[in-house]
Amino acid sequence: MAKTEIARRGILLVLSSPSGAGKSTITRAMLAAEPALQFSVSVTTRKPRAGETDGQDYHFIDRARFDAMVRDGALLEHAAVFGNFYGTPRAPIEAALTDGHDVILDLDWQGTQQVKEAKPSDVVSVFILPPDRGVLERRLKTRAQDSDDVVRSRMRKSFDEASHWPEYDYIVVNDHLDGSIATVMSILAAERVKRGRLLNLADFVNRLRGG
Amino acid sequence: MAKTEIARRGILLVLSSPSGAGKSTITRAMLAAEPALQFSVSVTTRKPRAGETDGQDYHFIDRARFDAMVRDGALLEHAAVFGNFYGTPRAPIEAALTDGHDVILDLDWQGTQQVKEAKPSDVVSVFILPPDRGVLERRLKTRAQDSDDVVRSRMRKSFDEASHWPEYDYIVVNDHLDGSIATVMSILAAERVKRGRLLNLADFVNRLRGG
Repeated sequence: MAKTEIARRGILLVLSSPSGAGKSTITRAMLAAEPALQFSVSVTTRKPRAGETDGQDYHFIDRARFDAMVRDGALLEHAAVFGNFYGTPRAPIEAALTDGHDVILDLDWQGTQQVKEAKPSDVVSVFILPPDRGVLERRLKTRAQDSDDVVRSRMRKSFDEASHWPEYDYIVVNDHLDGSIATVMSILAAERVKRGRLLNLADFVNRLRGG
Repeated sequence: MAKTEIARRGILLVLSSPSGAGKSTITRAMLAAEPALQFSVSVTTRKPRAGETDGQDYHFIDRARFDAMVRDGALLEHAAVFGNFYGTPRAPIEAALTDGHDVILDLDWQGTQQVKEAKPSDVVSVFILPPDRGVLERRLKTRAQDSDDVVRSRMRKSFDEASHWPEYDYIVVNDHLDGSIATVMSILAAERVKRGRLLNLADFVNRLRGG
């Protein structure tokens, strides 16, 4: 007999953290471990860095195109960071969620707020915290790509960001990377079987009862 | 440096299912896999079956003692099943939750309702469903210990029970036992890092920010 599938909408899993707390590493590990999980590729007006691929790391677009997307409501959230513009295209996410596919998004607290407003019942938000201040400082200081000014600004932003934990559904203290990845995987697995997310349960149970 | 612990209240994990859907097997597997998880031993007025140990499978008590516990509010929930009385002692559960220990309870929908009324913010409720009607019928028919009447009555009760899925937080279709156990483990892991359950997060983040 064919297995009875219980349909559901996809989950929009949003990860945020103070810069340096491990959000990007955890996002990459989640994508590697869960092939069914889709990564939302952002648009940005900044120039590609060495090693970045258009359409994979970002969709690199010009300012006129970005403004048009904002105007058309084609972005689920958007923001200016250090003079560059970033945004999350709405259409691929809508399509994925409708098809029951889960999407992972890596956002700051402002982006999370915009996405929660746009899709309140689809978002599951996770805030990653560093285990202590020293870890955060060391991680931010060893990023070689940016100027001192950018590092200082990022550290200030990082501590500000940490104050936004009360706006998230789940809080993961990233003291051991493997444990943190497992915890975020568990959050996804649990949310997938939340009653409110399942679509045809009444029919399924009726069939069980012989109806 | 000592790891900063984030304190939390324990979780009261309630598992229900139509009889025969696998609730008891999953409960046993959870206890084996998670030594920190505590099993709530019920009181009952029924006689011990072969192989049952007092204080381990149940606390076997007489009717007078049971009535006194109900009168004193010493039971978190209680019920009559096939002429016998069953109940969940309140004190050990209160103590465990306060100390941040998680407790697993194996209850029917009526017991779940009583426990949710008594401890609304501590309960995480999981409903286990069989994958199809045939599995349920086969499992109930192969239980040799009970009379035909008890089996028929249990099957009726089982289908009734299935209709109570809308009262639960999570729904797990038990088509593969290992997968179902992993899903319930994920639910527990996820609920442990839910923001509302964590007690001293504001202090923790203040220390991060150097406060």
